[in-house]
Amino acid sequence: MEAGTIWLLLCAALVLFMTPGLAFFYGGLVKAKSVVSMMMLSFGAMGLVFVLWVLYGFNMGSNGSDLIDGWLANPFSDFALSDMAKNDPASLAGVAFGSTFAVITTALISGAVADRARFLPWMVFAGIWATLVYFPSQGWVWGFDDEGLTGWIGTFTVGDATPIDWAGGTVVHISAGAAALALALVLGKRVTGFTKEDAVPHNVPLVLIGAAILWFGWFGFNTGAAVENGQGALIFLNTIVAPAAGLLGFVVIEHLKEGKATAVGAASGVVAGLVAITPACANLTPFWSIVLGLLAGIACAFAIDLKYKLGYDDSLDVVGLHLVAGVLGCLYLGFFATDTGLFVGGNIDQLVAQVVPVVVVMAYSFAVAFAVATVLDKTIGFRVKEEDEVAGIDTALHGAGYAFD
Amino acid sequence: MEAGTIWLLLCAALVLFMTPGLAFFYGGLVKAKSVVSMMMLSFGAMGLVFVLWVLYGFNMGSNGSDLIDGWLANPFSDFALSDMAKNDPASLAGVAFGSTFAVITTALISGAVADRARFLPWMVFAGIWATLVYFPSQGWVWGFDDEGLTGWIGTFTVGDATPIDWAGGTVVHISAGAAALALALVLGKRVTGFTKEDAVPHNVPLVLIGAAILWFGWFGFNTGAAVENGQGALIFLNTIVAPAAGLLGFVVIEHLKEGKATAVGAASGVVAGLVAITPACANLTPFWSIVLGLLAGIACAFAIDLKYKLGYDDSLDVVGLHLVAGVLGCLYLGFFATDTGLFVGGNIDQLVAQVVPVVVVMAYSFAVAFAVATVLDKTIGFRVKEEDEVAGIDTALHGAGYAFD
Amino acid sequence: MEAGTIWLLLCAALVLFMTPGLAFFYGGLVKAKSVVSMMMLSFGAMGLVFVLWVLYGFNMGSNGSDLIDGWLANPFSDFALSDMAKNDPASLAGVAFGSTFAVITTALISGAVADRARFLPWMVFAGIWATLVYFPSQGWVWGFDDEGLTGWIGTFTVGDATPIDWAGGTVVHISAGAAALALALVLGKRVTGFTKEDAVPHNVPLVLIGAAILWFGWFGFNTGAAVENGQGALIFLNTIVAPAAGLLGFVVIEHLKEGKATAVGAASGVVAGLVAITPACANLTPFWSIVLGLLAGIACAFAIDLKYKLGYDDSLDVVGLHLVAGVLGCLYLGFFATDTGLFVGGNIDQLVAQVVPVVVVMAYSFAVAFAVATVLDKTIGFRVKEEDEVAGIDTALHGAGYAFD
Repeated sequence: MEAGTIWLLLCAALVLFMTPGLAFFYGGLVKAKSVVSMMMLSFGAMGLVFVLWVLYGFNMGSNGSDLIDGWLANPFSDFALSDMAKNDPASLAGVAFGSTFAVITTALISGAVADRARFLPWMVFAGIWATLVYFPSQGWVWGFDDEGLTGWIGTFTVGDATPIDWAGGTVVHISAGAAALALALVLGKRVTGFTKEDAVPHNVPLVLIGAAILWFGWFGFNTGAAVENGQGALIFLNTIVAPAAGLLGFVVIEHLKEGKATAVGAASGVVAGLVAITPACANLTPFWSIVLGLLAGIACAFAIDLKYKLGYDDSLDVVGLHLVAGVLGCLYLGFFATDTGLFVGGNIDQLVAQVVPVVVVMAYSFAVAFAVATVLDKTIGFRVKEEDEVAGIDTALHGAGYAFD
Repeated sequence: MEAGTIWLLLCAALVLFMTPGLAFFYGGLVKAKSVVSMMMLSFGAMGLVFVLWVLYGFNMGSNGSDLIDGWLANPFSDFALSDMAKNDPASLAGVAFGSTFAVITTALISGAVADRARFLPWMVFAGIWATLVYFPSQGWVWGFDDEGLTGWIGTFTVGDATPIDWAGGTVVHISAGAAALALALVLGKRVTGFTKEDAVPHNVPLVLIGAAILWFGWFGFNTGAAVENGQGALIFLNTIVAPAAGLLGFVVIEHLKEGKATAVGAASGVVAGLVAITPACANLTPFWSIVLGLLAGIACAFAIDLKYKLGYDDSLDVVGLHLVAGVLGCLYLGFFATDTGLFVGGNIDQLVAQVVPVVVVMAYSFAVAFAVATVLDKTIGFRVKEEDEVAGIDTALHGAGYAFD
Repeated sequence: MEAGTIWLLLCAALVLFMTPGLAFFYGGLVKAKSVVSMMMLSFGAMGLVFVLWVLYGFNMGSNGSDLIDGWLANPFSDFALSDMAKNDPASLAGVAFGSTFAVITTALISGAVADRARFLPWMVFAGIWATLVYFPSQGWVWGFDDEGLTGWIGTFTVGDATPIDWAGGTVVHISAGAAALALALVLGKRVTGFTKEDAVPHNVPLVLIGAAILWFGWFGFNTGAAVENGQGALIFLNTIVAPAAGLLGFVVIEHLKEGKATAVGAASGVVAGLVAITPACANLTPFWSIVLGLLAGIACAFAIDLKYKLGYDDSLDVVGLHLVAGVLGCLYLGFFATDTGLFVGGNIDQLVAQVVPVVVVMAYSFAVAFAVATVLDKTIGFRVKEEDEVAGIDTALHGAGYAFD
């Protein structure tokens, strides 16, 4: 095979590995009596969204047969990609790479509904949300052409500035974060456990195993679409230093706030730095990536307390990490994007250009998620019975996670 | 290095990673008092079989010096590959890739003897089985030429149809499954614990960590031998969708049967889909891969109950997953293999061609495994003492797996 | 991207993954009440050393602006690599690869101070040690030229023999091992737990997860700098067989000594084989790699008892594994290095050439580590309070690792 295909496939494998990583990150954070349920939300999304993506999802954001030019293509133009497999199989590498993004974006949302969401309605939600939100919206950023950024977002220029979102600050992290907020609002707070004191992870090594896999896989996530050596190397290095700086920023704030640096804080700082660098990794120098990572770690260390103040039970901080750091990374480009950022040789145009996709994707994902979750909750019901939630969702729904004795 | 070598080596690293993944998958499924023993069976196989493969195993299935043309080459024609290292070191990439297959195939068998097999006889068995079964038989499928499928299996054509086994449905999964059945019969049932109610995994996150590593590594397993971009991309995508569909199929049946979808069921469905797609990944469209994965998940969800009905203690379902899904994947090609399958433009020939390697490999592996295990059991004894099995094999043989207090 | 860049970046991702792997390996070995602290020492090093490497560390061992020719370059010649990012971004791939070595080398040291080192002084130590020891010394071996081995070490020839250290036997393993010994001496023994009977790992699966990630990542470590197909394939295969043989050697000795083969022994044997092959992987045939791995497993199985006899509390055997196997691998080349080793066609020159870097790096790292740790211990204090150590360092410093109930 050619080097480019090898690269794309290996990056796809790395990103696929991220969703189990997320399952472990999330699974370690909840109580022992919910760990199976928590991991099943991610694994279930893998089962369903991979299949849907190949059946029709990829087509919705591609440029073969636009229903609405730059916005939506015909889902059934090449059902299950049978024509592509016959006539242009090499293009399946891009399909594979894209499938892994669809899955992890959907799985990310589940952090908001820990301990109380039933598996079946989650699966229905995951399928509908992926179909209505992720499949088309990823095309707004990347899908409608091989050159990238040529959906409607790429055409939204301000002066000389075009919106930048290299690897998914908007359609992955902001989108998942907004949907998570919607779910947290629709499902409501946990019966017990929604206090800072109760947020005790049951298995810290499992959290760190998850975080490590996420970081490892994120190299595929950010670098997969790189074409030139220099671009790939820059993105890769920025994907090292931003999460490293995020870790430092987060644990310093945590130490100042709580008097101790925790392992969950370290892992959260890594994730914050990774999220923030995602849209920005191809357009910052290593120095400005370090600064961004540091800011993301600091910002998220404060942002995760918002839910207690505002009263939405975003149990595992999808908002506090992915939405906040995603927005930060997108807007930071307005100031520090190489050549075009306000403070590094450009003007205000880049910043203005950055705002539009952020707002549109956030609003669209939130609205659809809120509507879908509300319908599900009013019909089949999204939450477990209260007594099952108190006793532990695993026993009621999936069987226990541990049997050490 | 050239792209082809890079690909082969990275795929070898991925497949090597699968055997620890298997150790975690198996280790999480047993009771806490057997976890170390269970993992040691896989790790021990890594230690031994890697060394044997390089010393003489690779040679047994290569085409340098056939003892029986297409069946067996001289094990000692280039002992420890010293000549190859000197004169053709680039070929060591293929040796490395092949070594990882030898190891995981052997390790797979150990799932049948959980909780009761001693480490030392297992190691002896592993070395002998690898030598007598895996080393030569892999050459029947792939080994005797660079073009693939040119051992005797590749010459067994029916009409225009040649047997297809891209990545080891026969010599990996069917072979390991048949040997596992032999071991289960020779060693007999566990003293306690061989009931469906007792099959409670002690550490579900560990099972999922294992399954995740297996899926991740399987991309190397299936795609490593791909040469053209289109072929590699197709195989890769099929290795995404078949296990995803397998997960769905398995948990649906589980829900219908037991009223709950378990995480072990999800992981088992992934494995079932991966096994089934292994022989078939280069010769199915994505659509027919999804169907195969779904069928594999469904079939295995039923097949894992067979052992209770028939009374063989295949403790961790090597038969129910690897043998069943392996046979399914091989025969399915007779119906749906692109261009040659009975239902997609071909005729009955492909189906007939598929049967022969399945039957031969299954019978050969079963027979040798049964004989070797019987001799070991009658001489040095394969099982631990009954009181040690009841108390927990780890304490007696290896030391405890956990000390949380 | 070109194949060479792809290779370097993927190897960098693999090596980055090793440090979390080390955190799990170390974390599983300690008691449950210290697991978070233990893992934080590695994760903290990731946060800090990645950032320092990019800010100034890489420059200290490069050839852009030598302060002392072949020994030390100007740390601030291209601060944060902003010029390189602009004018030669492809070179950032090598920077990324190098960063992962700096991090894991530093993290390795932490195994010596389990259960008693505070996070903050460790972080200060890590930053200073990396700056004074790793950053310049890696340049002595590899850094000052693209051709490798052209720091002062590469110029130290004996007859026709040049010192060989392909992937860091000296500046990674010997250096970390020597620093670990220094820290163990400065911090002193644990209040309780420094006996062979007390060295009970709290989570064996976690140890094996770590060891598996280490082995997987080590392929990146050893093979990343390979340029030709044959060289890469040879290195890769040697990185399979040496740890496999190390596993066998270690568990055999363990069985002879203790009457049982443990999983920690198997993992330790893998690490011993990996360390020993690190300097030697490009200059041995597979056969001599197997022998080296076997010797390393045997030697380390004995060496880990030295601390009890000599009385230094190198808690997790950084000396017994990394220093011992690192020295073994370096000196073994004097005897068996292809073409130049004493017993395979060469003469005594190679052996003499091997000794110098071993001794210099060991002495330098030990001396600096001893001095820095002593100053930290006398000023801010390196150890936790005695009552916190007894109660468990996690509760006092970071929060508990598990909450299963």
